Amino acid sequence: MSTKMDKPASMSADALADRVMSRSAALAGHTEEPGRVTRRYLTPPIKAVHLELTRWMAELGLHVRTDAAGNLVGRLGDPAPDTPVLLIGSHIDTVPNGGKYDGVLGVLVGLAVADVLQDRALPFAVDVVAFSEEEGVRYAKPYLGSAAIAGTFDPDWLERRDDRGVTMRAAIEAFGLEPDKIADAAYDPRRVVGYLETHVEQGPVLEREGRPVGVVTAIAGQSRLMLRFTGEPGHAGTTPMFPRKDALVSAAHLISEVQDYGRSIQGLRATVGYVRAHPNVRNVIPGEVDISLDIRHAMDDVREAAVAALIDTAERVAKEDGMTVEVLENQPQPATAMSGLLSRMLHEAMDEAELTPFELLSGAGHDAVAMAASFPVAMLFVRHPDGVSHHPDERVSVADVAVAIDVLARAVGRLADELEVN
Amino acid sequence: MSTKMDKPASMSADALADRVMSRSAALAGHTEEPGRVTRRYLTPPIKAVHLELTRWMAELGLHVRTDAAGNLVGRLGDPAPDTPVLLIGSHIDTVPNGGKYDGVLGVLVGLAVADVLQDRALPFAVDVVAFSEEEGVRYAKPYLGSAAIAGTFDPDWLERRDDRGVTMRAAIEAFGLEPDKIADAAYDPRRVVGYLETHVEQGPVLEREGRPVGVVTAIAGQSRLMLRFTGEPGHAGTTPMFPRKDALVSAAHLISEVQDYGRSIQGLRATVGYVRAHPNVRNVIPGEVDISLDIRHAMDDVREAAVAALIDTAERVAKEDGMTVEVLENQPQPATAMSGLLSRMLHEAMDEAELTPFELLSGAGHDAVAMAASFPVAMLFVRHPDGVSHHPDERVSVADVAVAIDVLARAVGRLADELEVN
Repeated sequence: MSTKMDKPASMSADALADRVMSRSAALAGHTEEPGRVTRRYLTPPIKAVHLELTRWMAELGLHVRTDAAGNLVGRLGDPAPDTPVLLIGSHIDTVPNGGKYDGVLGVLVGLAVADVLQDRALPFAVDVVAFSEEEGVRYAKPYLGSAAIAGTFDPDWLERRDDRGVTMRAAIEAFGLEPDKIADAAYDPRRVVGYLETHVEQGPVLEREGRPVGVVTAIAGQSRLMLRFTGEPGHAGTTPMFPRKDALVSAAHLISEVQDYGRSIQGLRATVGYVRAHPNVRNVIPGEVDISLDIRHAMDDVREAAVAALIDTAERVAKEDGMTVEVLENQPQPATAMSGLLSRMLHEAMDEAELTPFELLSGAGHDAVAMAASFPVAMLFVRHPDGVSHHPDERVSVADVAVAIDVLARAVGRLADELEVN
Repeated sequence: MSTKMDKPASMSADALADRVMSRSAALAGHTEEPGRVTRRYLTPPIKAVHLELTRWMAELGLHVRTDAAGNLVGRLGDPAPDTPVLLIGSHIDTVPNGGKYDGVLGVLVGLAVADVLQDRALPFAVDVVAFSEEEGVRYAKPYLGSAAIAGTFDPDWLERRDDRGVTMRAAIEAFGLEPDKIADAAYDPRRVVGYLETHVEQGPVLEREGRPVGVVTAIAGQSRLMLRFTGEPGHAGTTPMFPRKDALVSAAHLISEVQDYGRSIQGLRATVGYVRAHPNVRNVIPGEVDISLDIRHAMDDVREAAVAALIDTAERVAKEDGMTVEVLENQPQPATAMSGLLSRMLHEAMDEAELTPFELLSGAGHDAVAMAASFPVAMLFVRHPDGVSHHPDERVSVADVAVAIDVLARAVGRLADELEVN
């Protein structure tokens, strides 16, 4: 095991990127399911990841602690609680059978940036944060770690139960933490300079445009709906085609229109990912069909107009087909704005690194959504070959990771300059 | 307990219909699941139904036996095996949570007809048959009872296993029967006058037309297909609308066209009853979707043309949407023709009973499908209020049952006259 004495004091971004890749592979070995990467909130492999990260943070001389929500934080700079601080990180939980980079990459890039900056005097401390929970898998509630740090963690969540009936409170206690101290995990917004997150894009834009990294303009707002079409069940052989009320046909009419509508509005994403027909038997006309609708856009008014238009379309389709449609669920999540200052730092850093600055929207949610409730945030996306997300085939290239480390370190340096000047 | 001495010698069709209703209710009490009607092949409630039917048959003076496939047969007339015989019946198994009349009605109407005819000299014996299996639930293979009597029972079926791993052979032995004697259950076609089956319509036609009963013209042929659309999965938030390959959208395009096509061809029934999207998660574009196709028509060439046209449509739709479609399964079952002579007897009986003869297609399969492989068959459908089939709400009216008993008894009488004259 290496010690602080062994650390290479002047690793290049390429060497740091190599290390990010090997560390990502090492962390992928800590899983609930051998052969797959599955790490839900506060399960034993999260503890194993903490041990590895703690070792790597200690090698860098960071001051390491775990808060009551299970976030692991390594500080570069003055450990006093009232020091101004810049947070850099992402999450270490995964979806079941997920990839090696979603979340972990942002933590390891944060550590590499701390490595680059370790000998530089900064007007703020840098906290490299490994959020304990972002995916929302174990307790059907995402951003548990970042909500604790942003001070928006609702203590009622502690009574939620996982699929084995274990409350969140019990899970936190079993991990050796004190759930009633989660409020203490919150950072005072007055001393937070901002939050920077590096993440795999989880989409095809950077690859299509031939860019290694891009600055996120905003995180799209999202509306999650569930619709139920109710027609009349009947025997597929004995019920004539008229007057059938086949709920699956009506749902199909809507599914087709959702894609057409989605393609007609610039930047909109409209998806039916889930369908459940009842009784879902080959020789029975479906009497009831539920479908999900996932609607996203950078601009909340465009998203809201799309939701209204698609509900109208569902009602028109159902009426034409002689059946009814109900909106069972309609959960909106507004778009998340990025900090102008922090995003400008990323742009300038790309320029300085002789990369053409490139911007793109984040269609997926990230810890930055919860962090933005209390702090300025910005995000850097890394090219994601084939765009396969939440999947074992998720990939990044070592060259792109080196670019991300370089750009992020330069951005932090520029931010330091900017704040020192002002 | 009543004995033969107690039987009312001259019950009216109305009184016989009352008794069919009360007996249907009594048999519904024999079930695998209290509160629901569930009787799979050779389960204990089948034995209980045998005991009841045996008692009622004995009261009528019928000669009762059970064959090696579990069919219960009560003979009116000469018990000698070479006597010409007319079979009347249906099945006593049910789907899980089925109705009181599907199958049982045909057996009890057969018994009522035997009651009407008991003092009449006939040129053939009448076998009232309670087939042990028609629904195909326990061994995923329908018509086990009627196949045994038709001589088409395949001994390989004995090695099939139910969902608990019990082979059909073991189930037959546990019921106290000898599976290796199933071949002996077959009737010699040369001595079978025909098979008459009364059944609830399981559809809305008779109710819509205001008819108590109708003569079946044919049992529709059926093609069962399973299609798989394969596109590309992706994150619903991060994947732009172009160039998505959403397999559910393509399946929806086909589902919509299936109904349009079904409505464009007289007498065709085309249904998508089953859909499975993968991964079926709200924020993932479905990369793979399976849908069933159930295509039925009285005329095999129309059905076959429909199957070919819909496969072409699926391929066109998939190509337009930039994805692929595979036909995973395509099982055809030809249409079953009815005997001209037996159907004419039913028509003439309706005329004699001062009912306007009415004909309709059977969209569902029945024991008559298997029996038609070896014998002339005909069917009488009874009005099915609300057309709710395979469901606890399945109903028939006592008045319609009285009509069915009257028509069937007159038809058998006319057949006797016809055969005696020739």
